[in-house]
Amino acid sequence: MSDALRAALDAVEARSPRYADDLAAYVRIPSVSTDAAHAPDVEAAARWTAERLTRAGFPDVRVMPTGGHPVVVARWHHDPSAPTVVVYGHYDVQPPEPLELWDTPPFEPQVKDGKLYGRGASDDKAGVLTAIQAVEATAAAGGVPPVNVTFLIEGEEEVGSPNLLPFLEANRELLEADLAISADGGIFGVGVPSLTVGSRGLAGVEIRVRGANADLHSGMYGGAVANPLMALSRILASMQDEEGRVLVEGFYDGIPELTPAERAAIEAVPAEGDELAQLGLTEWWGDPAYSARERRLVRPTLEVNGMWGGYQGPGIKTVLPSEAHAKVTCRLVAGQEPDDVAAKLKAHVERVAPRGVSVSVTPLAGKARAYQMPLDLPVLELAADAMEGVFGKRPFPVWTGGTVPVAEQFQSVLGIWCLYFAFGEPDNGLHAPNEFFRLSTLKQGTEATVRLLYGLAGDPGALTPARG
Amino acid sequence: MSDALRAALDAVEARSPRYADDLAAYVRIPSVSTDAAHAPDVEAAARWTAERLTRAGFPDVRVMPTGGHPVVVARWHHDPSAPTVVVYGHYDVQPPEPLELWDTPPFEPQVKDGKLYGRGASDDKAGVLTAIQAVEATAAAGGVPPVNVTFLIEGEEEVGSPNLLPFLEANRELLEADLAISADGGIFGVGVPSLTVGSRGLAGVEIRVRGANADLHSGMYGGAVANPLMALSRILASMQDEEGRVLVEGFYDGIPELTPAERAAIEAVPAEGDELAQLGLTEWWGDPAYSARERRLVRPTLEVNGMWGGYQGPGIKTVLPSEAHAKVTCRLVAGQEPDDVAAKLKAHVERVAPRGVSVSVTPLAGKARAYQMPLDLPVLELAADAMEGVFGKRPFPVWTGGTVPVAEQFQSVLGIWCLYFAFGEPDNGLHAPNEFFRLSTLKQGTEATVRLLYGLAGDPGALTPARG
Repeated sequence: MSDALRAALDAVEARSPRYADDLAAYVRIPSVSTDAAHAPDVEAAARWTAERLTRAGFPDVRVMPTGGHPVVVARWHHDPSAPTVVVYGHYDVQPPEPLELWDTPPFEPQVKDGKLYGRGASDDKAGVLTAIQAVEATAAAGGVPPVNVTFLIEGEEEVGSPNLLPFLEANRELLEADLAISADGGIFGVGVPSLTVGSRGLAGVEIRVRGANADLHSGMYGGAVANPLMALSRILASMQDEEGRVLVEGFYDGIPELTPAERAAIEAVPAEGDELAQLGLTEWWGDPAYSARERRLVRPTLEVNGMWGGYQGPGIKTVLPSEAHAKVTCRLVAGQEPDDVAAKLKAHVERVAPRGVSVSVTPLAGKARAYQMPLDLPVLELAADAMEGVFGKRPFPVWTGGTVPVAEQFQSVLGIWCLYFAFGEPDNGLHAPNEFFRLSTLKQGTEATVRLLYGLAGDPGALTPARG
Repeated sequence: MSDALRAALDAVEARSPRYADDLAAYVRIPSVSTDAAHAPDVEAAARWTAERLTRAGFPDVRVMPTGGHPVVVARWHHDPSAPTVVVYGHYDVQPPEPLELWDTPPFEPQVKDGKLYGRGASDDKAGVLTAIQAVEATAAAGGVPPVNVTFLIEGEEEVGSPNLLPFLEANRELLEADLAISADGGIFGVGVPSLTVGSRGLAGVEIRVRGANADLHSGMYGGAVANPLMALSRILASMQDEEGRVLVEGFYDGIPELTPAERAAIEAVPAEGDELAQLGLTEWWGDPAYSARERRLVRPTLEVNGMWGGYQGPGIKTVLPSEAHAKVTCRLVAGQEPDDVAAKLKAHVERVAPRGVSVSVTPLAGKARAYQMPLDLPVLELAADAMEGVFGKRPFPVWTGGTVPVAEQFQSVLGIWCLYFAFGEPDNGLHAPNEFFRLSTLKQGTEATVRLLYGLAGDPGALTPARG
């Protein structure tokens, strides 16, 4: 271990008694981004973030307006020859409701059994603070951090980050960096480090099928007028075979085959209890060419999220409905483009639409590309070293089958990889009552981030820009 | 024309000036059977019906209780050697709402341009009165009616006649007859007589498909857990081919092929305007082996009346739903048994249910057999003669694709055919604001019924019991 790293870890040790108060002060601000009544609180959380960054030593701290809540940008660039990392996080929180399920008030943080309770404690105020504390400790040890650092802390993550992509696009130069680090995310379990290396993208369409211009009496017209619900059923059934393979033409085009290393890494992730039994199922379902875990994490999917039409009340009503509707979304993987997939869904629906009905297909909002880091990317080794140095265990790569647009946006807009380096645990109650963060994890996360920053400084080539 | 018929028609002529007042008094009673607040009015309408039958000369008039509103039974049996006819009708009416669309109050009957306006004027108070007036006229001419007559006037037709079948079954002897006549129904158009010779039956099921025990996140489980909406779509699509042929095994079993006479009679029914254009359609749809009219009137159908599951709101919600539901009903024709068809639907769903989901299939209420009179049934000739004698035109046979359980119930419980002999016109506003009945039709219908009663008296063999 270098003297600089040792000094920085000593600085964490010295400062860590104050971390809980810091987190409590942050959590006390009810920065609920979805609630207009909390707009002043959201604003206050942005200012608190900026002040905390200033206090950590950042010479350039800005609260920048967007179409919604502001973005806090802080830069500490001191060595043009050193790499630059941009740290992403968010200062907004989910609504605390239902309040009656909280043991203590959500915005009056309390420490119990080494855990600090309060809304946003884990998601994502501990994450933001962990990164700030780490930079602060390295600067305390060396005068400046070991790399150039930019912080990008937004206030709209909990409402889908509607202004983040435009902000990235409008501030490419300000945010120019060699690597992004997401301080939003988590690890596999308490003391079980992991690195998220992939998430699925999203594309979807809403399908509307129309028959006659009004609902009809099935006695007067049954058998002689096309039924939109039957037509829609036929359309949906044509999109997937009985074993789960998607039949939309070109759906799988451009998807690289999973490598043996990826397949092995996916299967190496420990199981989370007896999930099948918890779901009330006896078997997984889907494309037999892939394992259930592969299908859940890294293979593309097609799901009907909702379908409706005609009479849904009790008893019988012999209507021949005029319209039928469905929402269909696909989780995407590397190689698939959301707009392209939506266009293929539309073309499929229009091609198979039965006689006697008309169809309209509209893309759904929320599209996103998948994100996938190669498992042999050197920065993953640096991150694993940093985690192992603190937790005593080598982290394993994990995937989320869900969609996390920010990582892919760093890649596509700034041309850099986004490393997930965050420490929330699955039991932290994100988006739920009695959210908490472990104070021990707060310190461990800070130490791991200190180690990562030195690791990045020692081997700039490890950052491996994705582009150019 | 016999002297007796001439005298009876003269009696109609003499009494007809009072018919409008009679109908007005009947319509003034707001006998809305579905509204508990109107229960005393429904009771009053039953008493009014009984009193009117007594005034017409019926020696045996009863208001008989049921599980709901009472049934009025009146018998005038005087000659064991003469045939007996049972006349069916109903004294209850639909709710008048929306009141603001009525030009005059629905229960304050008014005559304008030869039409009497008010709720129930056409459906079915004119029908009940027409039959009473006809019997009254024949008795005025001959001392007694030319045949033995039983009236069976119920008060729950507008709520689906839930107590009629049990009443028929419990009073077989009281109602024993050679022919039933329905005074509920109508003719094809103003001055265009027709005879309804068939209606379709009904059977249906509700299908529930279950996957996991809760809605799931499509990012966490998409691709690896069977989707109930997709499974249900597959099930429904398997029930019918693209051209409308039902694929449920045994669905068409036992259905006699349409005769050339039936097919010709069906096509001879005049068209009702440009229906396709009114429906916003460019073509009819369905089994190409039959004409659109045959498919609408006399062929069995399978329709999805409603389907639902998952997220139906605006925008996107990436749920993998736990359940999916559909209601499916079939219109049945002669040769099909409702319970058998429901069982076949259930067996089909269970057979094709995809892997990974469980299905439950529950029969829907409202089942009914189809009703179909042979076109060469002699009583149809008698009825046609009676109509032609009044309207100057031979009636043509018509079918309804809808379901009218009463006719089939007379057939299956009492073993007799049910002749539709009623005079409401399609423009009468049944179940709609500004319902009316033409006073000229009130007299014509009475005359036609007088002619029918004499025709039935002259040729008892023409009644052709369906059984025994």
